[in-house]
Amino acid sequence: MQVTILGNNSALPAYGRHPTAQVLSVNGDLLLLDCGEGTQIQMQRFGLRWRNLQHIFISHMHGDHYFGLPGLINSMSLLGRTAPLHLFGPEALMPILQQVLDTANTQLSYPFHFTPLPLGKAAQLTENKNFSVSCFPVYHSVPCHGFVITGKTKGRKLLPDACKQYEVPAAFYNKLKQGDDYLRKDGVLVKNDLLTLAATPPKKYAYCTDTLYNPNLLPYLANADTLYHESTYLQSDEEKAALRFHSTAQQAANMAKQAGVKQLLLGHYSSKYKETAPFAQEAQSIFANTLATTEGETYDI
Amino acid sequence: MQVTILGNNSALPAYGRHPTAQVLSVNGDLLLLDCGEGTQIQMQRFGLRWRNLQHIFISHMHGDHYFGLPGLINSMSLLGRTAPLHLFGPEALMPILQQVLDTANTQLSYPFHFTPLPLGKAAQLTENKNFSVSCFPVYHSVPCHGFVITGKTKGRKLLPDACKQYEVPAAFYNKLKQGDDYLRKDGVLVKNDLLTLAATPPKKYAYCTDTLYNPNLLPYLANADTLYHESTYLQSDEEKAALRFHSTAQQAANMAKQAGVKQLLLGHYSSKYKETAPFAQEAQSIFANTLATTEGETYDI
Repeated sequence: MQVTILGNNSALPAYGRHPTAQVLSVNGDLLLLDCGEGTQIQMQRFGLRWRNLQHIFISHMHGDHYFGLPGLINSMSLLGRTAPLHLFGPEALMPILQQVLDTANTQLSYPFHFTPLPLGKAAQLTENKNFSVSCFPVYHSVPCHGFVITGKTKGRKLLPDACKQYEVPAAFYNKLKQGDDYLRKDGVLVKNDLLTLAATPPKKYAYCTDTLYNPNLLPYLANADTLYHESTYLQSDEEKAALRFHSTAQQAANMAKQAGVKQLLLGHYSSKYKETAPFAQEAQSIFANTLATTEGETYDI
Repeated sequence: MQVTILGNNSALPAYGRHPTAQVLSVNGDLLLLDCGEGTQIQMQRFGLRWRNLQHIFISHMHGDHYFGLPGLINSMSLLGRTAPLHLFGPEALMPILQQVLDTANTQLSYPFHFTPLPLGKAAQLTENKNFSVSCFPVYHSVPCHGFVITGKTKGRKLLPDACKQYEVPAAFYNKLKQGDDYLRKDGVLVKNDLLTLAATPPKKYAYCTDTLYNPNLLPYLANADTLYHESTYLQSDEEKAALRFHSTAQQAANMAKQAGVKQLLLGHYSSKYKETAPFAQEAQSIFANTLATTEGETYDI
């Protein structure tokens, strides 16, 4: 699992940084988390193809998190996309998109499915063979959700030498990966743990923007391999952060530490900061494995 | 009068080219013509400040001409703009913007005035001491307007030596610029043309996108100093152009020639073309003073 940052600035673009958008790659599927203005241009720029993108998640109705959506949806149609697209976002999102499409007499070339996020609630949103996604409410000035994406494991790992030794036919390998024991023709039951190793545990990515620092969120973030947590401000602007329902880098680090995650990614920087290194420095004093994200960079989860 | 090209691609971004937007500079005022996705980012990139931008004109409701507008309007407010903003565009534009603002509980920090374009009609839209703007209907798949911007002259040019010789006081200079004769205290009437030269004629810029080639438009474009005419395709794709209500470079050149303009600027290139030089070459064989626009470049009108 990997995440590529397309935009990591808050509110408005500044210093070449774009509003929020990121693409998560999970077992070959691409998921788009938020879609600030310029997302389709950033995807082109960083060589991310839309073909494997079938799921988009919008956290809330502030423009820096969705103003790139009409353009992206429209361009996919102009290019003749046929694969379905699944959009999850606040209920108010769909009427705006519908009006934009209707006004231009646009009939999308592909099946388009919208699912509203449950106001103020956590919920399981969707899953397929590669991932599952849930949402949880965060603390912002308008209704806003975070997302948790969990990759699916590809089953237990075969031990090729043991499989040969116990004469397991290749046709049975899929069942071995699922944990089945193998009953030989001579009546001997070969236990699965002789033939396989435990599966790699599924990866968990928690995406948490825009929100006040609030430990009530910890259960949703617990034990994530990577937590992306907004850090609009440095701790010296803690009051401003609270006033605007945002967090500081130090607060993000506290969340990461308390949630027991393995890695913290920072972003959603205020336009008042030209440099982003101070965000990493501030957070690292509390949670060492912190990175201040850079646009165009891809991070392993 | 000058125009800076922010986006010159059609429909979707390609080869680093952005959807349509351009900024006209007239006697210190900035006017934005169309506002494709990424316009605010392009303005930052090319060092165009919003302070002197008080007028925006949107030609039609295809997304590549207005998807940057919500972001621009919103960012101006986030930055605490107080100067009024005047938006002219299709009637359907305002309900979409209003819904975007309402959903985010946004109260703009500045007075915002919207004027709908008259469906299918030409009209005078606005004027101030620096410019006047009119619109005219063009031939596209949805209602669409072109715009004509005419600069205001700063009056007749004073001849300093003659003014001294005839003892005209400086307090009378403004009246001289407006063409008045000067009556001296000794009763001698000094005719204005002894004291001034004719004013530089006002510059005229005609903006014509998206449209089929149609000579009915010629009266609106007549004698423009510069015509910006869309050239989505080369002449080899003439049929495709007609089918999609667009023009070719050759057709744009024919319009420029028949309208008696001084300079032709091309843009709104289809994403099928990587290079833009062939557009200029094709048009120049009919109308020599043609330029294929490049983003970030500023052209004298």
